[in-house]
Amino acid sequence: MLEQTRVPETEALPEGAYPSEAQQAVEEQLVRNVLRSFDECQDPRLKQLMQSLVKHLHAFIRDVRLTEAEWNKAIEFLTAVGHITDDRRQEFILLSDVFGASMQTVNVNNEAYGNATEATVFGPFFVEDAPLIDNGGDIAGGAPGQPCWVEGSVKDTEGNPIPNARIEVWEADEDGFYDVQYTDDRVSGRAHLFSDENGNYRFWGLTPTPYPIPHDGPVGQMLEAVGRSPMRASHLHFMVTAPQHRTLVTHIFVRGDELLKYDTVFGVKESLIKDFVQQPGGTPTPDGRDLGDHTWARTRFDIVLAPAAE
Amino acid sequence: MLEQTRVPETEALPEGAYPSEAQQAVEEQLVRNVLRSFDECQDPRLKQLMQSLVKHLHAFIRDVRLTEAEWNKAIEFLTAVGHITDDRRQEFILLSDVFGASMQTVNVNNEAYGNATEATVFGPFFVEDAPLIDNGGDIAGGAPGQPCWVEGSVKDTEGNPIPNARIEVWEADEDGFYDVQYTDDRVSGRAHLFSDENGNYRFWGLTPTPYPIPHDGPVGQMLEAVGRSPMRASHLHFMVTAPQHRTLVTHIFVRGDELLKYDTVFGVKESLIKDFVQQPGGTPTPDGRDLGDHTWARTRFDIVLAPAAE
Repeated sequence: MLEQTRVPETEALPEGAYPSEAQQAVEEQLVRNVLRSFDECQDPRLKQLMQSLVKHLHAFIRDVRLTEAEWNKAIEFLTAVGHITDDRRQEFILLSDVFGASMQTVNVNNEAYGNATEATVFGPFFVEDAPLIDNGGDIAGGAPGQPCWVEGSVKDTEGNPIPNARIEVWEADEDGFYDVQYTDDRVSGRAHLFSDENGNYRFWGLTPTPYPIPHDGPVGQMLEAVGRSPMRASHLHFMVTAPQHRTLVTHIFVRGDELLKYDTVFGVKESLIKDFVQQPGGTPTPDGRDLGDHTWARTRFDIVLAPAAE
Repeated sequence: MLEQTRVPETEALPEGAYPSEAQQAVEEQLVRNVLRSFDECQDPRLKQLMQSLVKHLHAFIRDVRLTEAEWNKAIEFLTAVGHITDDRRQEFILLSDVFGASMQTVNVNNEAYGNATEATVFGPFFVEDAPLIDNGGDIAGGAPGQPCWVEGSVKDTEGNPIPNARIEVWEADEDGFYDVQYTDDRVSGRAHLFSDENGNYRFWGLTPTPYPIPHDGPVGQMLEAVGRSPMRASHLHFMVTAPQHRTLVTHIFVRGDELLKYDTVFGVKESLIKDFVQQPGGTPTPDGRDLGDHTWARTRFDIVLAPAAE
């Protein structure tokens, strides 16, 4: 029989009183029984994850004295999160994002390494097999927004250029939507390219603008219930890979954006805030692209990749 | 701007090294930023729940140094849990059950009160509007299993009988399935009745037999991965309500059942183990029901309800 503590017939305590010693013993014993249930797990890492999860989950329940109505609500909430999730909408990622769990996982996995570029959250809008463009190509694919010239270098932490690094970029349009949020099958605001023989890259994108995370679901309801905004600071996503180097998943943010002080997924890092310099209409473009009288912007983002783990 | 710690260009640490002071500062600052994001929450209890959840969730991630692959797997797992959940299958409840979270919530909400009957998990198989039976009626509704006479009293903690207490009962059949697990619309193995004017009750049910929780989904896969059994100890569910009394959600278990020492939802309590006494074929039944040569069983379960919270 699993260890059992029979709660003795005690003097009845009023509701809400600090739990008696006997009561705490019952709760602690349950934690031990649950921890022990993983004793036969052959995978040490899986055992460690499960046992730590149990400890923290039970600590939370016991800390807040979770009520049965609240437990029911949590089950309903998670069910709603699961039901709205499909291959175009990942509400569990959004949930992780707004609790800072995605950002903390990024932190834990991208420990400071010399002057390597800082990482931030992946988010739910990456798509494999984005169109290939040459350096100088345009990622917009018809998406509305202000043209923005983006350029920079890719180097290692010793300062050596990294040619042929793969650079995935993706962003929302000026209406605040990624291509996958439209119901047609458009591909826009995303591409991949490679740094050139000098380790440099350049492309036309769109000046990032702020947008709310999808907030018509349970995560959005939660944010509203707690008085939080669903807005993300303006950003452009990058994922940069090169052999023998640590993959970098990050964004660049726009200096001066009001939303830098509040980003609902806690993704902003000072080092990732870049100057997006507005260019008056008619200013000659770096590659001769003719934008007529339209304004455009330009920014520089120099990327440093850490070495891969041994 | 939210508080930001720029990680200084530090001496590069090898992978897996204990996090540097600067790294820990970044992680702790994120926790503070996430906690602060709930500052505008007007509902103090909701704020408390969210902030405690954040603390424990981040403590878990930082404790185990969760990898990005593991985070991805967690997202996939939760998504699978959500997708298999519908109005007949509640995989989030199963998930809560196998981590002991359901049982701990029960513990926290049913603190020892004198000699009140102990509570245990609700489980996912309760259905509203179960058929009404008189005392002495049969809950089986055609479900296969050994007939079992169940009787007892309903009293308060002072020993006073409680007439007209509502008693919901539900159980699996001898094949291990609840009615809702069949694809037809059968109603069987469940009913409700009321204690009589002396506070006593009695009915015919089925002798409980063990069964596995539904384990063809992600929760079952997890149990298998960690070397745990999906079996529940044999049990019969009760939910008892009476005005001015705390609702009791509990089960009774079968003394001698091998599975008492391991119940995958950690529901067993010593005080809830009852003697189910086998009766040879032909033994006269308490109400004259003619069972021919079939064996049957009988058990007594005296119920004590705590007073409701003020």
